[in-house]
Amino acid sequence: MIRFDTDYAEGAHPRILERLAETNQEQTQGYGEDEYCRQAAEKIRGACKAPGADVHFLVGGTQTNTTVIASVLRPYQGVLSAQSGHINIHETGAIEATGHKVLALPSDDGKLTAEQIGEYVDWQALNDSAEHIVQPGMVYLSNPTEVGTLYSKEELTAISTVCKSRGIYLYLDGARLGYGLMCPGNDLTLEDLAKLCDVFYIGGTKVGALFGEAVVIVNDSLKRDFRYHVKQRGGMLAKGRLLGLQFLTLFEDGLYFEISAHAIRMAEKLKEGLSALHIPFYMESPTNQQFVILPDVVCQELSKKYAYEYQERIDENHSAVRFCTCWATREERIGELLKELEQLLLAYQEERSMEALG
Amino acid sequence: MIRFDTDYAEGAHPRILERLAETNQEQTQGYGEDEYCRQAAEKIRGACKAPGADVHFLVGGTQTNTTVIASVLRPYQGVLSAQSGHINIHETGAIEATGHKVLALPSDDGKLTAEQIGEYVDWQALNDSAEHIVQPGMVYLSNPTEVGTLYSKEELTAISTVCKSRGIYLYLDGARLGYGLMCPGNDLTLEDLAKLCDVFYIGGTKVGALFGEAVVIVNDSLKRDFRYHVKQRGGMLAKGRLLGLQFLTLFEDGLYFEISAHAIRMAEKLKEGLSALHIPFYMESPTNQQFVILPDVVCQELSKKYAYEYQERIDENHSAVRFCTCWATREERIGELLKELEQLLLAYQEERSMEALG
Amino acid sequence: MIRFDTDYAEGAHPRILERLAETNQEQTQGYGEDEYCRQAAEKIRGACKAPGADVHFLVGGTQTNTTVIASVLRPYQGVLSAQSGHINIHETGAIEATGHKVLALPSDDGKLTAEQIGEYVDWQALNDSAEHIVQPGMVYLSNPTEVGTLYSKEELTAISTVCKSRGIYLYLDGARLGYGLMCPGNDLTLEDLAKLCDVFYIGGTKVGALFGEAVVIVNDSLKRDFRYHVKQRGGMLAKGRLLGLQFLTLFEDGLYFEISAHAIRMAEKLKEGLSALHIPFYMESPTNQQFVILPDVVCQELSKKYAYEYQERIDENHSAVRFCTCWATREERIGELLKELEQLLLAYQEERSMEALG
Amino acid sequence: MIRFDTDYAEGAHPRILERLAETNQEQTQGYGEDEYCRQAAEKIRGACKAPGADVHFLVGGTQTNTTVIASVLRPYQGVLSAQSGHINIHETGAIEATGHKVLALPSDDGKLTAEQIGEYVDWQALNDSAEHIVQPGMVYLSNPTEVGTLYSKEELTAISTVCKSRGIYLYLDGARLGYGLMCPGNDLTLEDLAKLCDVFYIGGTKVGALFGEAVVIVNDSLKRDFRYHVKQRGGMLAKGRLLGLQFLTLFEDGLYFEISAHAIRMAEKLKEGLSALHIPFYMESPTNQQFVILPDVVCQELSKKYAYEYQERIDENHSAVRFCTCWATREERIGELLKELEQLLLAYQEERSMEALG
Repeated sequence: MIRFDTDYAEGAHPRILERLAETNQEQTQGYGEDEYCRQAAEKIRGACKAPGADVHFLVGGTQTNTTVIASVLRPYQGVLSAQSGHINIHETGAIEATGHKVLALPSDDGKLTAEQIGEYVDWQALNDSAEHIVQPGMVYLSNPTEVGTLYSKEELTAISTVCKSRGIYLYLDGARLGYGLMCPGNDLTLEDLAKLCDVFYIGGTKVGALFGEAVVIVNDSLKRDFRYHVKQRGGMLAKGRLLGLQFLTLFEDGLYFEISAHAIRMAEKLKEGLSALHIPFYMESPTNQQFVILPDVVCQELSKKYAYEYQERIDENHSAVRFCTCWATREERIGELLKELEQLLLAYQEERSMEALG
Repeated sequence: MIRFDTDYAEGAHPRILERLAETNQEQTQGYGEDEYCRQAAEKIRGACKAPGADVHFLVGGTQTNTTVIASVLRPYQGVLSAQSGHINIHETGAIEATGHKVLALPSDDGKLTAEQIGEYVDWQALNDSAEHIVQPGMVYLSNPTEVGTLYSKEELTAISTVCKSRGIYLYLDGARLGYGLMCPGNDLTLEDLAKLCDVFYIGGTKVGALFGEAVVIVNDSLKRDFRYHVKQRGGMLAKGRLLGLQFLTLFEDGLYFEISAHAIRMAEKLKEGLSALHIPFYMESPTNQQFVILPDVVCQELSKKYAYEYQERIDENHSAVRFCTCWATREERIGELLKELEQLLLAYQEERSMEALG
Repeated sequence: MIRFDTDYAEGAHPRILERLAETNQEQTQGYGEDEYCRQAAEKIRGACKAPGADVHFLVGGTQTNTTVIASVLRPYQGVLSAQSGHINIHETGAIEATGHKVLALPSDDGKLTAEQIGEYVDWQALNDSAEHIVQPGMVYLSNPTEVGTLYSKEELTAISTVCKSRGIYLYLDGARLGYGLMCPGNDLTLEDLAKLCDVFYIGGTKVGALFGEAVVIVNDSLKRDFRYHVKQRGGMLAKGRLLGLQFLTLFEDGLYFEISAHAIRMAEKLKEGLSALHIPFYMESPTNQQFVILPDVVCQELSKKYAYEYQERIDENHSAVRFCTCWATREERIGELLKELEQLLLAYQEERSMEALG
Repeated sequence: MIRFDTDYAEGAHPRILERLAETNQEQTQGYGEDEYCRQAAEKIRGACKAPGADVHFLVGGTQTNTTVIASVLRPYQGVLSAQSGHINIHETGAIEATGHKVLALPSDDGKLTAEQIGEYVDWQALNDSAEHIVQPGMVYLSNPTEVGTLYSKEELTAISTVCKSRGIYLYLDGARLGYGLMCPGNDLTLEDLAKLCDVFYIGGTKVGALFGEAVVIVNDSLKRDFRYHVKQRGGMLAKGRLLGLQFLTLFEDGLYFEISAHAIRMAEKLKEGLSALHIPFYMESPTNQQFVILPDVVCQELSKKYAYEYQERIDENHSAVRFCTCWATREERIGELLKELEQLLLAYQEERSMEALG
C-alpha cells in the first residue's frame, strides 16, 4: 500500500532520529525544562522575530488546541471556528469536554472572514438576551485550513484588527503551517503570525517530526501559568527534551522550511498531473493537500494499491477524496499514482462508453 | 407596561399560592422526600398512564435540560438538537459546560425529522474517522418548539422509532407542554409522550407555577441515581415540597390543562385579530406564542405601552416579534393590544402614503 | 413528627407569603431584572455599607457555591476548604463537576486558620513541582460553620490579610449567616464581611425565605459577566422577582435580623436545657445548631416523635446528633423536646443500673 | 550533573531507537491502527494471559489516568485513592478537570487496604444523605506506589474482592510496574493483575521507552468506545505506531522484564550501600525508588554534583529525599554516589563534633 491519505504516514526526518540517538544516554531534567527545549524555544522566537514570546512544546494537535483554548476562555465563553474547523468536527468534542462551546460559522472554503467574525460578536454583545448566549471569547483559525486553503496577509490582518477591536483573542492552528508558509502564493511569515495572532502553534507532527507542536504565546495576558494548563490537560511529556530536540533540529538550519518546500513541490507536481488528466478539483488548494472528485469505481480500484482519504459524497457515483504529499514524499511515487489514475480513468471511460452503446 | 413578551411575567395561579399559605407552617423532610412530592409524582404518573415512571421536580428549565442530558450521555457523546433549540442558543452553553457538544441540525420550523436524525447517526457511525467525531447519544426535542410549532403523533412516533433502532435516547423538553397539549390541532397526549420518549419534562414555570419542572423518566436504564445528578447540578431544592405542592395543585383536578386551554383560547383570539389586521406571520403557530412581522416604527411606538419579544431582523424596515399569552392573560388585554396595533399600523400606512405622494 | 433536624422544615416567614400574594398578578421583566430585585440589592448594599457591591440572587446554596467558585478560579486552580466544608462533603462533587479540586485542610472545629492557609499556599507556590500541584486560587469559609462554630473578627481579619498577601480570593458561605450574626458572642457585622471578603452570600433558604441566597460581590475583578455564570450554571430564575421580593421583605425593616435573633434565643434555651440534663456536647456551638452525644437507644426512642440529624458514631453505644432551631421554632416545642429527653435518659439510666445489678 | 532524581532522565533502550530507525520510512495507518500496535497488543495479551483483553497505547501517565478514570465513572462518582496517590497530588487536578472528585484516604505507606475501601463505600452508601455525597465508583491503586511500596498478591486479592462485592471498579496505575514485578519479594504477576483488576496500565515512560503507557482493559463493560475517550482527552498519537513499536520491542523477547531487573539490582546495591552508611530510611522500599533522610547541609553539598528528588521536610535540619535507579543506571555511578555520600556525612559529623566541643 502506497499512502497518500495523510501527511503523517512515515516516521521523522532522518536528522531528527540521528539527534535522538546521539543524545540518548544523556540525562536531562524532565518536563520540558531541559537545555534542548530552551534552545529550541530560542530558535523559534528568532524565527518569529518575537523575542518576548513564550514557547511551549506539546505532543499532538488535539491536545494543543484543547490546552490553548481552555487556557484562554472564561467558563461562559466559546470559540468561533469555521464549520469545517478541526476543533469542530474532528476532535471528538475535546473543546466541549473542557466546558466550552465551539461557535461554528458557515464557510465554503474553510476560512472565516473578518466581517463574519465582527457581525457575530456584535450580534451577541448587543442582544437583549446576551447573558443567555455563549459569549465569543476567541477566534480559532487553521492555516492552511482543513481543505487546503490559505489566509492572505490582508485577510489575517483584517481578522486580527476585528478581534482587537472587540477584545477577543486570535488563535491560529498551524498543524500544517510549514506547508502553508512555503506555498508559492503565500504572503504570510512567522513574523506576521507573531504580530497578528495572540497565540499560534507551529506543527511538527505533520512536518518532519515524530510528533510535537510548538505553541507560541505572544500576548502577555495569556502567558501566566500556561505550564499548569499543559500538565492538567495531559500534555506535559516526562522526557520533554524529545520535543525540544526535534524542534531544535527543525529550526536550527532551516530544515523545517526546506522539507516543507519539498512537500509543496511534490504537491504541485501532483496537481499538474491531476489537471492534465482533467480530474475536477473539489477545492482549489495551493498546499500539500489536493482534493479531487473521482468516480466511485475508480476510487475502489485505486484503493487496492493506494491509500487516499475519503472526503465526502458528491453524487450517486462520485466522491471527493484527498491526496497528501509531505516532507517524505518520493517524487517517483507521484508519477506512479498519476499513471495509475490515468489507467483507471481510461478504463472507466471505456466501460461507460460501452454501457452507453449497451 | 402591559407584557406580552413572555409567559412568565406573572406569579402563580392563585390556587398554588393558597396551597403554599395553608401548608406554610407544616414541617416536612427536605430535598423532595416529602409527602407532597410523593403525591404529585403519583398524580403525574397517573396523568401519563406510566405507573413505572420516576418523577423528579427541579426548579428551572436550563437546570433541567442540563441535568437530564448530562445524566444520559457518555463523555464523548453529544446531543442532537435543532439549530434553534433552547439548549443550543439560549442556555449560555450550559450543556457544553458539562462536557457535551450540542450537535445542531438545520431546521426551518424548529423541528427535527426522523430522517435527518437517522442520516446523521448513520453518517457518524459509518465514518472512517468515527472515533474523531462526537457520537450522537440522544435527541433533544422541544414541544412546542421555540418558534411555536408542534410535533404530530406521527412525527414523534417516527423519531422515536429511529432513535430506538439506532440505540440513542429521546428526550423532550416540555417547558410549554401544557400549551402544546391543549392546541386544537394537537394529537399527542401525555400518555403518548411516556410511550415514545425515554425521558421528558412537564413545564411548570411557564404554565401556572411560581417555578418548577417535572422530569418524567420512563426508560429504566436512565433512572439510576438520578437524584445524585440533581444534587450535583444544583437543582435539589432544600424545601422540595414547594415543588411537590405546586405540581400536586396543577395535576390533582386538571388545573394544568384548564389553564393551558385558557392561554390557547387567548392565543387564538390574538391570532385571529392579527390576521384580520393583515399582519404577516413570521411562523405559523397554533400555540401560545404568536410570531409576526411588523414595521420597525410600529414596534418602536408599541413598545411604549406593550412589551413584546424581539425575534430577528427581517429587512431594513421590518422585524419579527413574538407575543405570548399564558394562563394569566386577561381577555380584555388582547382586545387592547389589537386596537393599539390597528391604530399604529393605520398611522404607519398613512405616513407611507404621504411619503409616496411626497 | 416534630422536626429539629434542619432549619428548612417550614415554609417562609408569613410576611414573605403575603408579599408574594399581593404582587402575584403584577407583570415584571424576567431573570432578576425587575424592580424588586433592584430594590432588594439596594437594601443589601445598604446593610453591608458597600455601595459599590454587586448583588445577585440565586435559588440555593449548592448552586451558589458552584457558581461563585467556578466564576473565580482559573482551570488549574482549586479552592481551600476545611475538611468539613459543605463544598467538600455535602454537595455531591458539584465543585469538581466544574473542573476544580477542593483542597481540604484538616480542622477540628470546622474553621480554617490564617496560618494554615498561608502555609499551604506557600508550600505549593515554592514547591519544585509547583506546576504538578493544584494551585490554591481562593479560600472557602462557611460562617457559621457546618458544626455551628463562628469566626471572630480577629480570625477573619487575619485570614483576609493572608489571602490578600498571597493574591488569592476569599469567599464566605453564609447559608446560616443571620444566625451567626445574632449570636451573643459574635463580633462580625455585614459591613465587616464586605470589607474582609471578596465575595460572600447571605442565606435566605435557612433564614425565613422559601428559598434564595444573595451573593454580594465586593471585589471589582470578580464582577464581570457574573450573570452569564449564573445562567450557565442553571441558577437564573425566570421569575427572578420571587427572589427580589423575599430579600426585600427580609431586609427592608430588619426582619432578617429579628427572626435570626429569635432562632438564637430558642437555641440558647435548648442549650441550657441540654446542659441541665448533663448531656455532653459534641461541639460547643453558640449558633442555631446544637450538637450533642446521646446513647443510641435514646436516639432510637426519640426518633419516634422527634426528627434530629444524625452526625456520626462516637462509640459502640453513642452517636453525635444535631438539633436545629430556626426562625419558625416555637418555644413550647423546646420544652417538650427537653422533657422527652429527660424521660428517655432517665429510663436509659435505670435500665443500665438494672443491667449493672444484673 | 549525575541524575538519580527520576527514572526518566535518559532516552530509550537502544533496541527501541534501532527499531524506530529501521522502520522510519515505512508508511502506516495512523492513530494506533497499524500492524505494530496490533502485534504489541497481542504480545501484551500473551504476557498477561488475558486473550480477551483490550490493549490501548497512550503517551503519558497523567493522560492515561485521566482517560481511564473519566471513561469509567458516572458524573456524580469519584475515585478512591491513597492521599499520596499520583492522581491526588501530582497531576494538577487533571481528574477534577474531567468533573470527578478524588476521594483521598489516609495511608502511611502509600497503599490502601481492602478494609478501608469497604468501610468508605459502605459509609457512603448507607448514609442518610447519600445523594449529597460523592459516590465512590472505582479504586485507584499505584503499584509500586509513589513511595516505593508494593502490594502483595494477598492484599490485591482482598481489594479486588471488596471492589467486586460493592460493585466498584479496580484500576491499577503501573507507571513503574516493571520495577515492581522484578522485586525479589514481589509475588504478583501480570496474569494476576489481569485477573484481579478491571483495568490497569503497564508503564513504558519510566521503563525503557521514550514514552508510552499500555492500558489493559480486562472488564468487558469498560471496553466500549474507549478509543473515543482517548481521542477526546488528547491521547491518540497520530503516528501511533511509535507506541506500538516500542511496546513490541519491550515485550517480544522479555526486554521489559530484563531491564526492570537491572534497575532493581542497582537499587539493591544502592540500598545496601545506604544501609552500610547508617543513613536512615524514610520509607522501606524494595523497588527502584529509595527514600532516605539526610541532613540538609549534606543535601546542599550533594546537589552540586548529584540530582535527587526532594520529598519533604523531616525536622529543622533534615529532609527526606528520593534516589531512583532505572533501566539505564550504570553500576559505577552507584558506587560514586555512595562514596560521595560517605564523604559528605563524614564531614558533617566532624563539623557537628567540632560544634559540640564548641
